[in-house]
Amino acid sequence: MLPQSVVAYLEAHRQEHLETLFELLRIASIANYDDDGCDRAVAWLTQHLKTMGFAVKVFPTPGKPNILAERTENNNAPTLLIYGHYDVQPPDPLALWETPPFEPTVRDGWIYARGADDDKGQLFAHLMAIDAWQKAAGGVPVNLKIFLEGEEEICSPNMEAFLADHRQKLSADAAVISDSAFFADGLPSLTYALRGLVYTEVTVFGPDCDLHCGLHGGPVVNPIHALSHMIAQMHDTKGRITLPGFYDDVLPLSDTERRSWAALQFDPQTYAAEIGVNELAGGEEDFSCLERLWARPTLDCNGIVGGYTAQGAKSILPSQASAKLSMRLVPHQDPDKIVEGFRQFISEHTPAGVRVHVAQPTTTRAVLLDQNSRAMKAAKLALQETFDQREPVMIRCGASVPITELIQRYLGIDAVLLGFGLPEDRLHSPNERFKLDQLYRAAAACAAFYQNLAELS
Amino acid sequence: MLPQSVVAYLEAHRQEHLETLFELLRIASIANYDDDGCDRAVAWLTQHLKTMGFAVKVFPTPGKPNILAERTENNNAPTLLIYGHYDVQPPDPLALWETPPFEPTVRDGWIYARGADDDKGQLFAHLMAIDAWQKAAGGVPVNLKIFLEGEEEICSPNMEAFLADHRQKLSADAAVISDSAFFADGLPSLTYALRGLVYTEVTVFGPDCDLHCGLHGGPVVNPIHALSHMIAQMHDTKGRITLPGFYDDVLPLSDTERRSWAALQFDPQTYAAEIGVNELAGGEEDFSCLERLWARPTLDCNGIVGGYTAQGAKSILPSQASAKLSMRLVPHQDPDKIVEGFRQFISEHTPAGVRVHVAQPTTTRAVLLDQNSRAMKAAKLALQETFDQREPVMIRCGASVPITELIQRYLGIDAVLLGFGLPEDRLHSPNERFKLDQLYRAAAACAAFYQNLAELS
Repeated sequence: MLPQSVVAYLEAHRQEHLETLFELLRIASIANYDDDGCDRAVAWLTQHLKTMGFAVKVFPTPGKPNILAERTENNNAPTLLIYGHYDVQPPDPLALWETPPFEPTVRDGWIYARGADDDKGQLFAHLMAIDAWQKAAGGVPVNLKIFLEGEEEICSPNMEAFLADHRQKLSADAAVISDSAFFADGLPSLTYALRGLVYTEVTVFGPDCDLHCGLHGGPVVNPIHALSHMIAQMHDTKGRITLPGFYDDVLPLSDTERRSWAALQFDPQTYAAEIGVNELAGGEEDFSCLERLWARPTLDCNGIVGGYTAQGAKSILPSQASAKLSMRLVPHQDPDKIVEGFRQFISEHTPAGVRVHVAQPTTTRAVLLDQNSRAMKAAKLALQETFDQREPVMIRCGASVPITELIQRYLGIDAVLLGFGLPEDRLHSPNERFKLDQLYRAAAACAAFYQNLAELS
Repeated sequence: MLPQSVVAYLEAHRQEHLETLFELLRIASIANYDDDGCDRAVAWLTQHLKTMGFAVKVFPTPGKPNILAERTENNNAPTLLIYGHYDVQPPDPLALWETPPFEPTVRDGWIYARGADDDKGQLFAHLMAIDAWQKAAGGVPVNLKIFLEGEEEICSPNMEAFLADHRQKLSADAAVISDSAFFADGLPSLTYALRGLVYTEVTVFGPDCDLHCGLHGGPVVNPIHALSHMIAQMHDTKGRITLPGFYDDVLPLSDTERRSWAALQFDPQTYAAEIGVNELAGGEEDFSCLERLWARPTLDCNGIVGGYTAQGAKSILPSQASAKLSMRLVPHQDPDKIVEGFRQFISEHTPAGVRVHVAQPTTTRAVLLDQNSRAMKAAKLALQETFDQREPVMIRCGASVPITELIQRYLGIDAVLLGFGLPEDRLHSPNERFKLDQLYRAAAACAAFYQNLAELS
């Protein structure tokens, strides 16, 4: 059980902690952008971690910097690697935010801000827990390496090289990543698998410049039509993806998993209503909704643009059109093979009269984690203690946290995905939010996790 | 033959006329926009026409105003209706202009500006011709009604109602529209048919807001996919449009026309190279390139947008996607029937899980003109006189000038499409231009046309 002094400290410092988190949320640190947003987040975090007694080092990368903050408490204690990311998704479309994305606001018990959940709020729960152990109990029961990156939202393109180069620096007995979510509010959950990702952009080039579609319409191939045709052909009528070899290496779902997911309280109707659609008609028809979300690969167009898109009419035959496309991968799919199949598909579906460019894709493998590791046990106990003795459910998640698989492959440990988001947090969407009560309990659960990890080691 | 005094006046006043035209080209009068650009063009034209001795009246419409300038020279002379439009296409994409679209510039014998050809330059050729007759010969040989509109580029949505209400005001013995082009530089041409137009926008609505495509990708139908699928299905593998009933009323091409077009000096390879494509693979395979451009209906997506389109990656499943779509119609197709077929197609191709909205289309009928009218003969002679005695070729044009068919239907006369553009003028595209020599010859040809019309009447 968590010492009463730690619990009391967390309760007494809620307002102070919240104000500190808001400082971080005010920084528009978007990995996509070339501005100084990420640098300002790095400066703030470096300063904050130094104040907490950490030795902090900032590592430049070809993209945004990584931060490593270390503190040894006790040579006999295990070392825990805590991962988080300080970059956030772009706030677009801005007009749909009720309050500005980088002016954090509390309404009805929720913090509203870009990054409130993903991932500034969740990583901050660890900083609250560490602060409480330090101030109220003389120190944290584990040695800590806090590792923060700034490119998670763009698929961590520089992370594999960094981990390959810094295995020793990052080595630890256990790793924890708080960047996932509960299955439902009040139902503590541990995620044991994530999907991978391939993200790319396809551009179709037609005539040299936009043409008058009356004067030229007919013999000229329209790049938007060519692109639409490609996208339309990427799924068959049964919702299966048609890229060559796409399903070859997919790990089939075990009956045990299918049964355990069927037992979860999940109502597709309610889910559809929550996201505002009248029917969940996407994906492969032979799989349940949860199976499509967690264990089946997908392909989605994330954005498309071509020709005239401002107000009113402009009668042109556009010069080019482009689409951002992402594929979510499941365990055992190899991103390199998927990219190869994608390129082959595009080349086979490029009609005469246009040229096509495929941007160099960013990729992440899917990951499956050991459900019975010591760290997983410590996490289960911590959640149970903090959330009214409810036993955590073991779930998968359709999203990707690229470092999870890299930690497994390069550091040889299975991280614990101890996430505290809720399904209604609107990640990547306007009005992203994080429940205040969840933040406070997350801090307590993190504190308990450190203690459990030390005790089980 | 044009009086020598008129010819000499035009030559002596080239610079002055050019500077006056530049004043009009500097006004960004875009029908799509809510700003005061069109009002400023109306004010400039009103002032200019009054200075030329016209009685000018501005007619408000639900959109941009119409201008009617009248001057009776001689009760025995025929009355000529001259049509032009003062609105221009939006200048996007701005980055591709070598000099700003509303700062007219002369380079290598060409005027570069939005509207340089379409239609400010062409309508100004008439004002130059009128000025020359007035100043150098004591008056124009015909009575004039100059009628200018500000919504041609958005399909003249208020013109039909206006013509229906003002038949008497606009009645004339002949009508001329200078808003078309020569078949090639140096080859005088008269256009005897234009395609019609249906322009609309389709929006597909999916989830309430953009969703995280990892957390939600699978069961949710992606609006971009649904829209791409619709667009892809609008043509079959032979380039034919699949909307129900689309070809029902198409007037087949006569053998005479096919033969006369085949005799024109037209090289598809050269055309493809000019617009920067490696192959003319669009449209119906059973028709020649000119036939596809002039006599076959088309369907083109003019713009598409959905999801994240800014720099870098954003992993979302978008809330909506929309496409602007236009159809070019040929003689005897009924726009109302085409719209009905389009709506039926969209409704039949809307998948479960999304909603679709089709914007109220704007429409224009195609038009076929009498090639042997008195005005046509006057125009042929005028071109021959002005362009080195070359006999004009009779051509069609794939574009639309909505008023042409309305003049036929409501005023009972077949206009003459006495256009002076060149195929290389980049209408609707960046770096639109008009050849200086063509402008000067156009003014002389207009002046000759008035005289021929008076003499043939």
